[in-house]
Amino acid sequence: MQLPIVLCQTARQPLQRQLFDQIRELVLSGRLKPGTPLPASRALADQLGVSRNTVLLTYEQLLAEGYLQTRQAVGTYVSLELPEGCLAARRAPDEPAAEAGVHTCPHPLPFKGRSQALVNPHPLAYDFWLGRPDPHSFPIKAWHRLTNRALASAGTRFTEYREPAGLFELRKAIVDHLGPARGISASPDQVVIVAGSQGGLNLIARLLVREDCRVATENPCYQGAAFLFESHRAELLPVPVDEDGIVVDLLPRSGVQLLYVTPSHQYPMGFMMSLERRLRLLDWARRSGAYIIEDDYDSDFRYRGSPLTALQGLDRHDSVIYLGTFSKSMGAALRLGYLVLPRQLVEPARTAKALIDNGHPWLDQAVMAEYIGSGAYDTHLRRIRQIYRERRDCLLERLQHHFGEVVITGQDAGMHVAWHLPRSFPQARALQDLVAAKGVGIYSLQSGAAYDFGGCAYSERTVVLGFSSLDERHIRAGIDRLAEVIARNRSAPAHATAADSVHPPLTTNLTL
Amino acid sequence: MQLPIVLCQTARQPLQRQLFDQIRELVLSGRLKPGTPLPASRALADQLGVSRNTVLLTYEQLLAEGYLQTRQAVGTYVSLELPEGCLAARRAPDEPAAEAGVHTCPHPLPFKGRSQALVNPHPLAYDFWLGRPDPHSFPIKAWHRLTNRALASAGTRFTEYREPAGLFELRKAIVDHLGPARGISASPDQVVIVAGSQGGLNLIARLLVREDCRVATENPCYQGAAFLFESHRAELLPVPVDEDGIVVDLLPRSGVQLLYVTPSHQYPMGFMMSLERRLRLLDWARRSGAYIIEDDYDSDFRYRGSPLTALQGLDRHDSVIYLGTFSKSMGAALRLGYLVLPRQLVEPARTAKALIDNGHPWLDQAVMAEYIGSGAYDTHLRRIRQIYRERRDCLLERLQHHFGEVVITGQDAGMHVAWHLPRSFPQARALQDLVAAKGVGIYSLQSGAAYDFGGCAYSERTVVLGFSSLDERHIRAGIDRLAEVIARNRSAPAHATAADSVHPPLTTNLTL
Repeated sequence: MQLPIVLCQTARQPLQRQLFDQIRELVLSGRLKPGTPLPASRALADQLGVSRNTVLLTYEQLLAEGYLQTRQAVGTYVSLELPEGCLAARRAPDEPAAEAGVHTCPHPLPFKGRSQALVNPHPLAYDFWLGRPDPHSFPIKAWHRLTNRALASAGTRFTEYREPAGLFELRKAIVDHLGPARGISASPDQVVIVAGSQGGLNLIARLLVREDCRVATENPCYQGAAFLFESHRAELLPVPVDEDGIVVDLLPRSGVQLLYVTPSHQYPMGFMMSLERRLRLLDWARRSGAYIIEDDYDSDFRYRGSPLTALQGLDRHDSVIYLGTFSKSMGAALRLGYLVLPRQLVEPARTAKALIDNGHPWLDQAVMAEYIGSGAYDTHLRRIRQIYRERRDCLLERLQHHFGEVVITGQDAGMHVAWHLPRSFPQARALQDLVAAKGVGIYSLQSGAAYDFGGCAYSERTVVLGFSSLDERHIRAGIDRLAEVIARNRSAPAHATAADSVHPPLTTNLTL
Repeated sequence: MQLPIVLCQTARQPLQRQLFDQIRELVLSGRLKPGTPLPASRALADQLGVSRNTVLLTYEQLLAEGYLQTRQAVGTYVSLELPEGCLAARRAPDEPAAEAGVHTCPHPLPFKGRSQALVNPHPLAYDFWLGRPDPHSFPIKAWHRLTNRALASAGTRFTEYREPAGLFELRKAIVDHLGPARGISASPDQVVIVAGSQGGLNLIARLLVREDCRVATENPCYQGAAFLFESHRAELLPVPVDEDGIVVDLLPRSGVQLLYVTPSHQYPMGFMMSLERRLRLLDWARRSGAYIIEDDYDSDFRYRGSPLTALQGLDRHDSVIYLGTFSKSMGAALRLGYLVLPRQLVEPARTAKALIDNGHPWLDQAVMAEYIGSGAYDTHLRRIRQIYRERRDCLLERLQHHFGEVVITGQDAGMHVAWHLPRSFPQARALQDLVAAKGVGIYSLQSGAAYDFGGCAYSERTVVLGFSSLDERHIRAGIDRLAEVIARNRSAPAHATAADSVHPPLTTNLTL
């Protein structure tokens, strides 16, 4: 018998491996049936033009793995102990892989979820996409230097499992930073290092969210949070926001397990929650027994006044879980974020973190700890805060230049603003499509990584514009193009007034 | 009025910040009641010995945050709009933090879990703890060089969100490595980079495990997997293992959502699943509709014969999820692992990964991709495989030297062996305690990061010994000490025979 085998002398794979794979395939595909004798090693070696040793070693391996058997006087044959059912219709290795659903699973896939839009699927030349740091802002020189230093003294740190809550040095550096920056008073024990905001939200969801439990969010809110809770089969309860933040009076008195808010710079509207609202919210949490997630995603960028003390810093009933990230201030590819937890959640969070991933990788944590501890982080923040402020000023100036008294919210902080369009303009989604055709990206709430539950005052006539990742030349050119599009598509005089806007009561009009 | 404020001129915090914090605290604690006038700025500056400007700026910030209000002719006073309920009994910042349970949450914490023992909580001088690479094995020089190269060409890679499934270059390098090494044929699209084995298990659990669904595991099995499924409220179904691996005939015909196995080197017993068993297992999966997780945690270390083709490489019904890790071959602090998924799970896994953490950090992925692609990884594996083989040989030789014909399983692969104690020896847990007192760590199954459901033949008289992290001098000294302890605590002649062992049918006796 000659086996249908072709070896390639110039392939990367050794001849013995090629031979092994092909005989195995013949067996598993049923083309060599159980009991079939294999050719003598010398004969097969001659057939294939390889050394007899290659064949002998291959047979030996196939014997060891159980594909072949051997008996004195009979020789080598295909194993009789391979179960019949496994041998038919095996897919050849170069055949196209199975279609989705080939696996005839009688259980429906328990996971149902959708993923948030973090990367703009259709990037544009003048793209005011949200939440992106300046691509050139990463302090690569300092990072390179500190990475070299960490590697030089790494010792045995790469091989060991570490504390799942994260590197102590980094947790300490974060706490030291948060005290003056956000009015947070906590010990390093209360900090868990997570893979960015999303990693933090996921950890909280594992701790606190169970099927059908109620999670309240702002409406509109951040997509990544809403989609996550939804995938945990929570019942989402959207609560309106106004200029002072979430409307606490509209929260149910009880029955809510968790509330997700963005007090420093409401996502996506940009409102800052007032102190009065903060204190009322904490009071609600105490009475209702709910936990609050305070997502402080871009609080490092405050352009006017001081930031308000974080909810966590005001909380005296251990209700607030503070969530911070380095994705905005440093870079998202570090995947570094952190939770500051109420004491009663520290141990459960540490356990959950161990079960989720046994903790964050070491090197980036060590470098970040040094970067903060050396004071370089504060310097870096001041530098990019200034750059972002100039970009924001440029954006607002250009909008005013073309459209007069524009109604903007969120301009005192963060990396994006919300622009409430005059009635004479096309609606948000239509405008988005019109300008996208000209290479300009501005976004309706739903397109801009926000979760709009509908029924919200901002759904139709609000667009969001991120300014942090575009230089001033691009900002100007982008808004100029936008103006051209609007000029051709509006239904009213060239200069709209604030009264023309859909939200006359807004008092946070443009103040540079 | 003189406020009870003390500023420290030499503290790290600026005077203005100290002043702000202390006045805020007075307000929130209720010691300064709503409506109370604040001292004139000049008076307070005199009192504290600071410039008037410091006081003015502090007042301004407190006004901006809503703690204070001001009115012409009245001056500055504590805000009237602070809700009364929030002002009493505030904890002072230096007071000890709240006790656990201060948060009066009416909802019980949904999360219930325990975390696996990855780090030995009580490390010993001669510690045969499991799953630890040689602490000096990490290829730090090559890693340092490749890290420098990646950083030099990082461009904008640190600032961007990336593909949640992981860096394409790494997924490609893994697929290229797995083909010849494990007989796996897959495309990079099927690979998701995860945070070590645990990150992979967690992702699978999110996809496939829902409350009360049935997850079958080997008995005994790896703690990290069992605890994870347990925390997802799965019903665990332990299935016995023998020398050929999991006993397929004892798996229920239906109703199992997921099966977790370790075919290359059963954890903790070290058995290699036979080919016949593998094929029968795949057949069972096809019939029952269950998915199989193939955890190949230490398959890089094979000391005798070739490794069997992975289950994934034999699967023709898209039932197998292959789980690999670099925690054993490189180091656990990289937190790098990977899943190779059946096609129908690729998109759900990508979505779940985005919701869990938006993907793995960039730098280590880029370096690992280069490390594999350059061929350095293969060289590294050969080098440490040789070192571990010598350590294994040393361990087995020393056990034979003291105890004669010892009954060992799992010695052909991996980083640990299981030793089945003769009847004349103390039981596993008792022996563990006896030798721990002498600085030697050997472990009963339950202590050795295994999940022993009980009712298993190995619970009482099997100990596990990891050999990969100890040099030969320590291995010899540790086993010599162990022998002394046993000599004082055994109930039979100095040299036991295999027949003395509790598992006479075991055929995998010591073969060096």
